[in-house]
Amino acid sequence: MNKPLISKWPLKKIVNHRIIQEEESIAREVPLTVILNGQEFATLVCSPADVRELAVGFLASEGVIRTIEDVQSMSINENQGFIYVELKNPQPIAPSDMSKRLIGSCCGKSRQFYFKTDAATAKTVMSKTKITQEQCFRLMKALNARSEIFFETGGVHNAALCHPDKIIAARTDIGRHNALDKLFGYILTNQLNVKDCVIAFSGRISSEVLLKVSKMGIGILLSKSAPTDLALKTAVDLNITVAGFIRESKMNVYTHSDRIICQ
Amino acid sequence: MNKPLISKWPLKKIVNHRIIQEEESIAREVPLTVILNGQEFATLVCSPADVRELAVGFLASEGVIRTIEDVQSMSINENQGFIYVELKNPQPIAPSDMSKRLIGSCCGKSRQFYFKTDAATAKTVMSKTKITQEQCFRLMKALNARSEIFFETGGVHNAALCHPDKIIAARTDIGRHNALDKLFGYILTNQLNVKDCVIAFSGRISSEVLLKVSKMGIGILLSKSAPTDLALKTAVDLNITVAGFIRESKMNVYTHSDRIICQ
Repeated sequence: MNKPLISKWPLKKIVNHRIIQEEESIAREVPLTVILNGQEFATLVCSPADVRELAVGFLASEGVIRTIEDVQSMSINENQGFIYVELKNPQPIAPSDMSKRLIGSCCGKSRQFYFKTDAATAKTVMSKTKITQEQCFRLMKALNARSEIFFETGGVHNAALCHPDKIIAARTDIGRHNALDKLFGYILTNQLNVKDCVIAFSGRISSEVLLKVSKMGIGILLSKSAPTDLALKTAVDLNITVAGFIRESKMNVYTHSDRIICQ
Repeated sequence: MNKPLISKWPLKKIVNHRIIQEEESIAREVPLTVILNGQEFATLVCSPADVRELAVGFLASEGVIRTIEDVQSMSINENQGFIYVELKNPQPIAPSDMSKRLIGSCCGKSRQFYFKTDAATAKTVMSKTKITQEQCFRLMKALNARSEIFFETGGVHNAALCHPDKIIAARTDIGRHNALDKLFGYILTNQLNVKDCVIAFSGRISSEVLLKVSKMGIGILLSKSAPTDLALKTAVDLNITVAGFIRESKMNVYTHSDRIICQ
């Protein structure tokens, strides 16, 4: 399913009352149905690249697997857009639990955990990694440079796993969450130790984005966009440094600013 | 639950190596759990405004209700973020059907329908409404002007129901889909006839966005952002005009361009 991310579309371009007939690049969007031990589990709509990683990262985000060792095998039916995942020790999953909201405070975690699966898999990040402001600017610039490949189409998000001084891997998707799940899948598939890593992200930081970063065990999240208050409250609790609106030589550090060094 | 959309957050602003301690506006994000006839149905994470409309629009998008007449009553528990919806004629909903992908072609609809609920509720739009390019530019300008209220926070999307010559209602949310569901809920709650209307939208046009517009029965979708190929294929099938990248005096018309008049 590593089909092209872009397809061509004929359109009318209107510029100051002039109509120009043209063909432009469009981001592709395809459905991917995850079949878990023979049972339909979920359908994601995604960009058609890195879908194995997407399936792995999605299952880890949902708390179904913890490491790649939990996966017995995976196979893809490209034409149907089906990915078949067999687990080694399949746990029965009550479908009704999947996105069930956690009510009350009995779980002993903070009020930011609204979903059962999050309460089970989100964790306080212990990373002591630090990064300089210059490194932040350079990483975001590098992410933007990669994004330019897709500049012509618009409509995609990028998430990158980075060391403070370079991008290790970047993933692209029409969905913000999918881009992060692909990166999570990449980390798990390659069994990487990422505690000294940083995530650079093109999209807005909602609570779901923040939770995914916490599940990866990464302590620094950089974005060119804005965070929400729930994301920031969750970041405070989970010990994650959030910096947003990173553009040129400006940035906003919202939480745990001790990890960002200003010389 | 019409609580403030914005809250304040203390942060460190880094500008050219200078650190400024400031307080900034942040978009708020809250969970909303929909309890349908006493049963937990879904939890959305959303901006805390217009949540009744969000619940109505979401249930209509999911194919659970068709008109506001299907709703017997609604009540909100603000502190818990619960909305209780009682239906007049509750249909048993198999939870496993909710987001189940439609396999095969037995439904008689096009291959763009990946979800059972969409195949049941998306419809070919019969609207003959037309709009001039000048009206398109003016509507998007008006939408952007409204968005400036939230400019300081970033991180929200706007969707507006419009006549070709003015905005009728605009809704805001941290989630693109939520902004559209709120608008759908507004239409249903007020039992509006919208076949001559237009949607102006700040976000990217994915297939899900397109399907929501079709469920509203609206034939023209304007956006300042990019569409995906699946959204455009669906728009071709459902007879919806899609114009994107609308900025100043430029726009791209991707599908059914006959509804956009260029004098």
